[in-house]
Amino acid sequence: MHSERRPRLTPAIADVRRAVRTALATLPAPNGKTRSTNPAAPETATPPETATAPKPLVLVALSGGSDSLALAAATAFEARKAGVRAGAVIVNHNLQEGSADVAAAAAQQARDLGLHPVDIRSVHVGDAGGPESAARDARYAALAAAAAEHGATRVLLGHTLDDQAETVLLGLARGSGAGSLKGMAVDTGEYLRPLLTIARTTTEKFCTDSDIEAWNDPHNLDTSYARVRVRQTILPLLERELGPGIREALARTADQAREDAEALDHFAEEMAEDLADISEAGISLPVRALAANPAALRQRLIRLAVSSEFHVSLSRTHTIEIARLVTDWRGQGPIHIPGVRVERRENLLHFSAHSEERDAV
Amino acid sequence: MHSERRPRLTPAIADVRRAVRTALATLPAPNGKTRSTNPAAPETATPPETATAPKPLVLVALSGGSDSLALAAATAFEARKAGVRAGAVIVNHNLQEGSADVAAAAAQQARDLGLHPVDIRSVHVGDAGGPESAARDARYAALAAAAAEHGATRVLLGHTLDDQAETVLLGLARGSGAGSLKGMAVDTGEYLRPLLTIARTTTEKFCTDSDIEAWNDPHNLDTSYARVRVRQTILPLLERELGPGIREALARTADQAREDAEALDHFAEEMAEDLADISEAGISLPVRALAANPAALRQRLIRLAVSSEFHVSLSRTHTIEIARLVTDWRGQGPIHIPGVRVERRENLLHFSAHSEERDAV
Repeated sequence: MHSERRPRLTPAIADVRRAVRTALATLPAPNGKTRSTNPAAPETATPPETATAPKPLVLVALSGGSDSLALAAATAFEARKAGVRAGAVIVNHNLQEGSADVAAAAAQQARDLGLHPVDIRSVHVGDAGGPESAARDARYAALAAAAAEHGATRVLLGHTLDDQAETVLLGLARGSGAGSLKGMAVDTGEYLRPLLTIARTTTEKFCTDSDIEAWNDPHNLDTSYARVRVRQTILPLLERELGPGIREALARTADQAREDAEALDHFAEEMAEDLADISEAGISLPVRALAANPAALRQRLIRLAVSSEFHVSLSRTHTIEIARLVTDWRGQGPIHIPGVRVERRENLLHFSAHSEERDAV
Repeated sequence: MHSERRPRLTPAIADVRRAVRTALATLPAPNGKTRSTNPAAPETATPPETATAPKPLVLVALSGGSDSLALAAATAFEARKAGVRAGAVIVNHNLQEGSADVAAAAAQQARDLGLHPVDIRSVHVGDAGGPESAARDARYAALAAAAAEHGATRVLLGHTLDDQAETVLLGLARGSGAGSLKGMAVDTGEYLRPLLTIARTTTEKFCTDSDIEAWNDPHNLDTSYARVRVRQTILPLLERELGPGIREALARTADQAREDAEALDHFAEEMAEDLADISEAGISLPVRALAANPAALRQRLIRLAVSSEFHVSLSRTHTIEIARLVTDWRGQGPIHIPGVRVERRENLLHFSAHSEERDAV
């Protein structure tokens, strides 16, 4: 068995543990209800060790960096009290010399913390969508496979407040489509991010305070990644020029934007079910309903129709161009966007597959 | 009468004029309908000069800087074709040595452009809310007074794409409440901003191309203003590190966020009318309806109840704290926030004025 470390309870350790405790308390219990609606409740409120239902399993996604190590250590500490089992999954991306050794060392740290099972997944990273995107796709596929294999309720991710602020700024720089500002959700149903309110400096302090040696990923210093430039240059400047709360402010904005988008997505999906008329010829939406709704819903209905039928994700510019068939109608002809043809016929907006036959002949 | 200038039609002049033409086309016609739903329509579609209805008046808010001068010149050119009259209002803030001379020079430029009436408003800037806020309050009060006095349909403001990007970044840095990201609207019903898609470099080019000499406000170089730091330091860095489209991306994000917020505000206001129960003792909302709606609507209903009854603008943190009486109910006592007391009683959330009597006794 592992030798249990008992580091002194410093503020950093207390903060990270509290964040993990709060997140674990939101997990669905084996009976389907939320484990506790009160993460701050005294320990007597947590399920007794002798509970007969099988304890749910969470897997910490561990890179060996300070964020995920702090998460792993705090999860190991909090899991028993929360009545969950905690393991770890380490993805070896095979992108750097010695990555297998880094993975093996992280796995040993996980075992030392008392996590079980500890699973190393070796993946091949392709090049679809660029190096960052390809590595992310491979990583999430491996995490999902591990979760399925071990029957884990959630995979715990070590994203911090800093990661969230970086994600929001990167989304802002793209500024495209509905999802650019939403940042990362705390709980997706598959993934849980307990540290989204915790600064990266706190996870680093956690590791120092706990005598845990963290691995420094050389990719984190590679300024060919936009994320690294945001981290090293942009956020420090914003903090200097606009005040020290910029990370928290970006995270709050993302929370708000995500809530707004989720509510409107929800309404749009409900309405689309009632409104959309699907046939072999394509999909139609009634102009009257599109006109009667605010722009945010009208545009979502259009995006939904196109994405559900043609698997095309419309840009904001294209969406607004199509919406003009409703808001600025003066007898325009059909609009062609890649893969989709949109036409107003009488009181319907009709979407059909845009055949490239003429080009092919 | 004024001597009409005929500058050659450069790309900058064409861009600014087109933006103004598009904006003027959205003005309500004297008969209450939109003047034209098609700003790109040929000139024959515009109302004839001999229309019997009185022409609506727009007033350009003119500082003498390149943005508002370009707006004034383009408006003077486009107004006749759009069937509107165009004047100018110049606010002398009396904050800088020689500000009366700057105002008089701008007024002369407006007259030279053929604008009428041209009205200089001299204001006293207090110190409530800090120097930027106090100057803005005094300015908008003067503009509103001028619009009312002259019966203007809209005051035209020279805010550019750069101003919009700066506003979004400043809002992000605050990150508080629902409105932080929304930026500036094109048309508020009182104010119209035709240049929100035009870069500041374009308005500067417009003035150079038109031989119009713009005034450079020394405040625009004063780095004690956060907006100046955003303009001089932050946006150039973001552009360098994340790509040249950052201003457009920030503006698109603001447009999207504003649309989302407006749609949800609209739904929340409709629901609040049905749901809220107002009595002498305060205002109540049913817990069941709050629980059944997505977070974005629940929080807006709570904010609306508090703002309508107690004129208090809730922070996101306070709003979420109150929402926990619905989403995380475990028999909590009343919540006190400055000026308001919130309590769950049976199936109602009850808001009442928070008396400070105990402190006063």
